[in-house]
Amino acid sequence: MANTMQNKGILIVLSGFSGAGKGTLVKKLLETYDNYALSVSMTTRAPREGEQDGVHYFFSSREQFEEKIQADGFIEYAQYCDNYYGTPKAYVEEQLAAGKNVILEIEIQGALQIKKLFPESLLLFVTPPTAAELERRLKSRGTETEEVIAKRLARASEESEGIEAYDYIVVNDNLETCVEELHQIVKAARAVPVRREAFIKEIREELKGFVKGAQN
Amino acid sequence: MANTMQNKGILIVLSGFSGAGKGTLVKKLLETYDNYALSVSMTTRAPREGEQDGVHYFFSSREQFEEKIQADGFIEYAQYCDNYYGTPKAYVEEQLAAGKNVILEIEIQGALQIKKLFPESLLLFVTPPTAAELERRLKSRGTETEEVIAKRLARASEESEGIEAYDYIVVNDNLETCVEELHQIVKAARAVPVRREAFIKEIREELKGFVKGAQN
Repeated sequence: MANTMQNKGILIVLSGFSGAGKGTLVKKLLETYDNYALSVSMTTRAPREGEQDGVHYFFSSREQFEEKIQADGFIEYAQYCDNYYGTPKAYVEEQLAAGKNVILEIEIQGALQIKKLFPESLLLFVTPPTAAELERRLKSRGTETEEVIAKRLARASEESEGIEAYDYIVVNDNLETCVEELHQIVKAARAVPVRREAFIKEIREELKGFVKGAQN
Repeated sequence: MANTMQNKGILIVLSGFSGAGKGTLVKKLLETYDNYALSVSMTTRAPREGEQDGVHYFFSSREQFEEKIQADGFIEYAQYCDNYYGTPKAYVEEQLAAGKNVILEIEIQGALQIKKLFPESLLLFVTPPTAAELERRLKSRGTETEEVIAKRLARASEESEGIEAYDYIVVNDNLETCVEELHQIVKAARAVPVRREAFIKEIREELKGFVKGAQN
């Protein structure tokens, strides 16, 4: 049966402006639907206050990280400011095989790297409805200085240049609506040819068989 | 407000194997949701039994058709077996402007032509779950000879070679589920960057404004 072939999950790369509400969105998505899993990155940087091993990151030594690189244990990894950051492969593969859609929260460079390696991955970019709303959300946190906010907006301006590379631009105006929209997008994404390859191959061969049968 | 910019409908090109159930699907979609409109093609071929002008086709003389070509009145047109077939432009544009998603039921060559002219059009391909099911449906009509059925399967086999060009492959296993899936795909398709151009442009400019403001 061609239509029962692809029960694997989708590898979802989620990016977005700082202040777009990605974290809350992912939390709500994981709470609402049971077919999603969140990939936790591994890093060699020291934990910050409140960060838990296995929740925010897997914290590792430089040596362990490099051994894992040698063992082909990462989907992607990169170095920033003398620290390694990477996506451990085993968890992602297990969850995909179990039919879960696995979410990677990474930035545009990593996102493009993933898309190159896995053309069937799904790149989602989360944005607030307007830049004014982005500024309002950053300010309303009340924890950031004007300088930091200005930096984040400058960063958002830079990031906005590359967003056509994403498969979908998700506008986060209202949390509930946006979670629902995300989920619908992921469901719809199953019907894109790159994720229907097994189905296409099978129905093609079956049709060829009929044609051959008719000629004999 | 960047998010209120794009209320235009989506131009939907619907293709599919003969026997995939396209006609029933479109009928049900139009009955269920009020934001769809079906484009009716114009042709110079003679009406067949039961075909109504303005419903199945707009029937026209060769002269009228050629005048309309001269007046740039078609989105696309082609000649098959000495007859013209075309999609009149005015109706499609009116409906899109009114926020309706306009469905064109055309074949792959026409579909690719539309995509080239309108990159924001949405190409959907409808298929039954298996080739065996396609054969079963063709046979169950009870009106077609074995030869005609064999021809349609051969045609389907040819068509299957090009289906990666479509944006989505919609498997029509159950009518209700499939109509719902189609509708969800169309909703999700609004979030694809090519259909968010106005939004992207606006938020980019707004962000640039903030950065400039912070520098002054």
